[in-house]
Amino acid sequence: MRSFGSDNHSGIHPDILKAIEEANKNHCIAYGDDPWTQQAQQKIKDIFGENAEVFFVFNGTGANVMSLKACVSSFHSILCPDTAHIAVDECGAPEFITGAALKSIPTPDGKLTPALLKPHMSHFGFEHHSQPKAVYISQCSELGTVYTIDEIKAIADYIHTHNMYLHMDGARIANAAVSLNKSLKEISVDCGVDILSFGGTKNGMMLGEAIVSFKSELSENMKYIRKQSAQLYSKMRFVSAQFIPYLTNDIWKQNALHANHMARYLRSKIEDLHAFTFTQATDANIILVKMPPEIIEKLLQKHFFYIWNENEGEIRLVTSWDTSEDDIKAFVEDLHKLI
Amino acid sequence: MRSFGSDNHSGIHPDILKAIEEANKNHCIAYGDDPWTQQAQQKIKDIFGENAEVFFVFNGTGANVMSLKACVSSFHSILCPDTAHIAVDECGAPEFITGAALKSIPTPDGKLTPALLKPHMSHFGFEHHSQPKAVYISQCSELGTVYTIDEIKAIADYIHTHNMYLHMDGARIANAAVSLNKSLKEISVDCGVDILSFGGTKNGMMLGEAIVSFKSELSENMKYIRKQSAQLYSKMRFVSAQFIPYLTNDIWKQNALHANHMARYLRSKIEDLHAFTFTQATDANIILVKMPPEIIEKLLQKHFFYIWNENEGEIRLVTSWDTSEDDIKAFVEDLHKLI
Amino acid sequence: MRSFGSDNHSGIHPDILKAIEEANKNHCIAYGDDPWTQQAQQKIKDIFGENAEVFFVFNGTGANVMSLKACVSSFHSILCPDTAHIAVDECGAPEFITGAALKSIPTPDGKLTPALLKPHMSHFGFEHHSQPKAVYISQCSELGTVYTIDEIKAIADYIHTHNMYLHMDGARIANAAVSLNKSLKEISVDCGVDILSFGGTKNGMMLGEAIVSFKSELSENMKYIRKQSAQLYSKMRFVSAQFIPYLTNDIWKQNALHANHMARYLRSKIEDLHAFTFTQATDANIILVKMPPEIIEKLLQKHFFYIWNENEGEIRLVTSWDTSEDDIKAFVEDLHKLI
Amino acid sequence: MRSFGSDNHSGIHPDILKAIEEANKNHCIAYGDDPWTQQAQQKIKDIFGENAEVFFVFNGTGANVMSLKACVSSFHSILCPDTAHIAVDECGAPEFITGAALKSIPTPDGKLTPALLKPHMSHFGFEHHSQPKAVYISQCSELGTVYTIDEIKAIADYIHTHNMYLHMDGARIANAAVSLNKSLKEISVDCGVDILSFGGTKNGMMLGEAIVSFKSELSENMKYIRKQSAQLYSKMRFVSAQFIPYLTNDIWKQNALHANHMARYLRSKIEDLHAFTFTQATDANIILVKMPPEIIEKLLQKHFFYIWNENEGEIRLVTSWDTSEDDIKAFVEDLHKLI
Repeated sequence: MRSFGSDNHSGIHPDILKAIEEANKNHCIAYGDDPWTQQAQQKIKDIFGENAEVFFVFNGTGANVMSLKACVSSFHSILCPDTAHIAVDECGAPEFITGAALKSIPTPDGKLTPALLKPHMSHFGFEHHSQPKAVYISQCSELGTVYTIDEIKAIADYIHTHNMYLHMDGARIANAAVSLNKSLKEISVDCGVDILSFGGTKNGMMLGEAIVSFKSELSENMKYIRKQSAQLYSKMRFVSAQFIPYLTNDIWKQNALHANHMARYLRSKIEDLHAFTFTQATDANIILVKMPPEIIEKLLQKHFFYIWNENEGEIRLVTSWDTSEDDIKAFVEDLHKLI
Repeated sequence: MRSFGSDNHSGIHPDILKAIEEANKNHCIAYGDDPWTQQAQQKIKDIFGENAEVFFVFNGTGANVMSLKACVSSFHSILCPDTAHIAVDECGAPEFITGAALKSIPTPDGKLTPALLKPHMSHFGFEHHSQPKAVYISQCSELGTVYTIDEIKAIADYIHTHNMYLHMDGARIANAAVSLNKSLKEISVDCGVDILSFGGTKNGMMLGEAIVSFKSELSENMKYIRKQSAQLYSKMRFVSAQFIPYLTNDIWKQNALHANHMARYLRSKIEDLHAFTFTQATDANIILVKMPPEIIEKLLQKHFFYIWNENEGEIRLVTSWDTSEDDIKAFVEDLHKLI
Repeated sequence: MRSFGSDNHSGIHPDILKAIEEANKNHCIAYGDDPWTQQAQQKIKDIFGENAEVFFVFNGTGANVMSLKACVSSFHSILCPDTAHIAVDECGAPEFITGAALKSIPTPDGKLTPALLKPHMSHFGFEHHSQPKAVYISQCSELGTVYTIDEIKAIADYIHTHNMYLHMDGARIANAAVSLNKSLKEISVDCGVDILSFGGTKNGMMLGEAIVSFKSELSENMKYIRKQSAQLYSKMRFVSAQFIPYLTNDIWKQNALHANHMARYLRSKIEDLHAFTFTQATDANIILVKMPPEIIEKLLQKHFFYIWNENEGEIRLVTSWDTSEDDIKAFVEDLHKLI
Repeated sequence: MRSFGSDNHSGIHPDILKAIEEANKNHCIAYGDDPWTQQAQQKIKDIFGENAEVFFVFNGTGANVMSLKACVSSFHSILCPDTAHIAVDECGAPEFITGAALKSIPTPDGKLTPALLKPHMSHFGFEHHSQPKAVYISQCSELGTVYTIDEIKAIADYIHTHNMYLHMDGARIANAAVSLNKSLKEISVDCGVDILSFGGTKNGMMLGEAIVSFKSELSENMKYIRKQSAQLYSKMRFVSAQFIPYLTNDIWKQNALHANHMARYLRSKIEDLHAFTFTQATDANIILVKMPPEIIEKLLQKHFFYIWNENEGEIRLVTSWDTSEDDIKAFVEDLHKLI
């Protein structure tokens, strides 16, 4: 089976699987007190700076809700785009785990701006209202767009004047970094991001995400939050070990470059058909494009992808580290026949 | 490194690692809608009965808190031994996730009985008091003891008359089953267990547990609870695939038989020294034994294990599916020298 | 001091205060097992039908969050107008107490409709998304508008086909009932409302609200929810006793009629000035009207009211059971001078 | 009806009711921005010191859970006697509202000591275990015993070395103060209490408790916690107004003196019968005494009180600010006849 459904439909990069195999020797202490975890943590510090504190967890939702729990109390609110993963795709996990209110803000392109945030930056100090305390952005966004460095800085600067925290969901931060041709650090902590969900699963790992905290007050109790949130992996070496080649050998970069390249290639091939409207920029590895319902229906009989907005006839195509040119050619050929 | 610290210090059984490798082909739909997950779920139904509903999760704490959340509302209480994993080792995750009260009951051997439960089975219908609704037992217990079938039945029968649920934490259910020479079904659902945390991680898997629910009202909303608890694995095939050989090829049984055998062997070797007192029966793969502090201290310089009760001079030794006779000999030799 | 700030700026109706005084005799059992509570509960059943279950609580936020907690689990969502009290004015209490997600829906007039709800009635059965389970409406609304019977029925009928519950926040239900010239029953349970926050505090009581549940599954655990939410009043007779004259002697109706009448009178007096735009209908006792900022500023120096929307220059004027014609004349006179 | 069931079976002291009546004039701003609230807050500061921060709430459970929520995060634990109101009588409200674990410690007399706490003061820094962060004591205790100043100081000093907070449930602090013949301040903040639930309801008020915080970090977010916990009273003047005579005219002291005096009198009268065993000291207004079941049964036909421990044949008798000598004589006479 081949799929444009999501980048988590892909498998494990062979070098990463090999790292798991190699870590499978002997006994080692559980819960992260092992050499693989230490090495992987150091790799991440090497990338983001020595102040970064690193906490490995199982999955993206876990990384997001733990990060947000560190940022807020239950009487706070979290501002996010209305297309945000935390607002739409996590079954209310952020509200449940933090007790806080989520304020979903409509955006044209999945990206927040100071201007969009402004109407919600109010009622500070009034006890009747949830107090704004954290802003969530995803890089790249759910719509496949990528924040520029200046765009992130603008948000961070604005909200920091209100003592608020900026949480970046980096489930696809690798795709964003290579899209901008910047380092992971340049597009996160250097822009004022306070805490990052650093994703691995969608970009060639078997599983594993890292919470990377850049503020000591957010790191302080994270280990307890992780345990209490059931995100502390006993045999942690098998997640940590994956991060080592992922970061050492630039697998993160090569995989993301490939996925983005495939997305651009797929988009250009569809553009060549001169039949369909793209609703968002394809900055990374996600394409949003409108098609007539009868074409979608027939295309779904041979190819796997998700309808993004049924009313709008909008579909989402996601490329992956292991998407091949043949996958794309097969898709576009069938699409061509349907026009 | 070799360790008697815990069975989660061990690695991945080679056949299970192979199953991960073999599942690493092509694309497949995420979140469990894949053939490996379907096959693994069917394997578990084959074992526990067609009524069993199966939900794969990352880890034991996740399985426990989700099971309990399905059983209780926030105004309920959960009764458990005061040595229970949920009471001692999960950083308050059950209280946090369920909002309910935990009532920890002292026991001589880590096992509850109707007589021990009885004083807490009161105040039904009185709104001032958390209403007892679930009982948690672990099989085998945290102290390495194993409930007999009659002992579990007695609890289940007793609490079911009060419309309460019995949750079994089966992080080491394999060790219990082979200890009793009974099937997994005979020591769980057949005894009246309503919901089971079916463990894999401690017995040779890389990671993965299954919630097995035997009551439709407990299964009904589990998928939402799983997602909201951040326990839904996107690339689920890589957990499901591990369960297939684990259950098909009796790896669960062989691993548990070996671990239990090693525990008995280790215990007999220590008994031969005629120097130490064992505080609990060694029904499965856990040994609790008292030693003078100076011996513990020196032993820890060469061997890895945990002090269970510092005041009592009690240590815990856990054997694993990959504990070797050599591991034991080396340990006992060094211990012998210290007497 | 006189105020148009809110109807909770008013005091206690003398007959209700008298009822408190009369209940202050002798001892009686706490927590509601007393004759006043029984009588008050029966009064409410007489009004809403014998199936109604009644739970007295301290305040409106308490009544709302308990009602919603009975309706939803944490993986559900609650749909409400974006001006809803629960969305704006309760500091995130609903999210905190229920763990569920709130979906705030923009409306032109503070009132939901099936058409407004429809885009949010989706993803049923998909575990990635909070499952819609309750709709919250307030009667009258935060903007002073009142739902007609048909409008409520349309919502109830629509959402009941999705097994959802309709919660009515009746903090001002008395004002709505007299506005429509209908009974309390006709505008709530008869329209399909499943659970009601029946307010007293804003309409002449010292304090006290009643949760009135019309569905046994919502009533079933309410007493535990009330205790656990710290809303069970020990000396309950002093709340119950207030409801007796409130309901027996039609104080609820007279007070609401007066407040509504004063609002219409105030509005007509302002309309006579031909200088200001009203942004909403004045169906009950709330007036929303736009004024230039310099007039608002000066008016605030002599009169008490709240700015509703600073950007729009919109102020809110609320009349009460004890607002006098003199209050209104004084206000309008000063306003007249400012034009 | 006369009752020894609880001090909340009593009514409102006439001077306090009069204060409510007098506050019932005109309009005033809601939610505490009124002169009565300011005056009452100042009265409490006058008593406890200018650093005290005061938050009026509806009831004792509300005061307790809000105080504890300010002290702990969800990964913390709260240590308390196993007879504590929060452990037994609040339907799990503390676990629900804080998400934290409650550790209930058996005591001989309802009072904690450093020695009783010590075994639970462990595992600091280990993420597997809920971190001890708050200790709850009630003064007087649920068993009617009263902590001496030295006893409270010993607890406070001990736990402060672990950066933990001491919360005192003062539902009956007035009875404790007059029992010790000390000021309210001397037995709370002067001993190291960090936050106090200062009760009024049980000692002659209609309703109303005050959270009195002595640490700025505990006060900081209390107003949001109060609102989100549905404990912010709109017409707050009617609670605040009660505290004014309560504190100005020493009603708190007279009422407590009377209740304690009645308890001693009742105890002495029962002692005179030379037939029954008292299980606890009667330091304040609560008597615990054992009686044969047949006597209890018959006594309950004519008098109202609660069985405290059915298995032990232990009953609880509580005297109140309005208990009369006649109440006691009637009770003891009937008891005498039953011997």
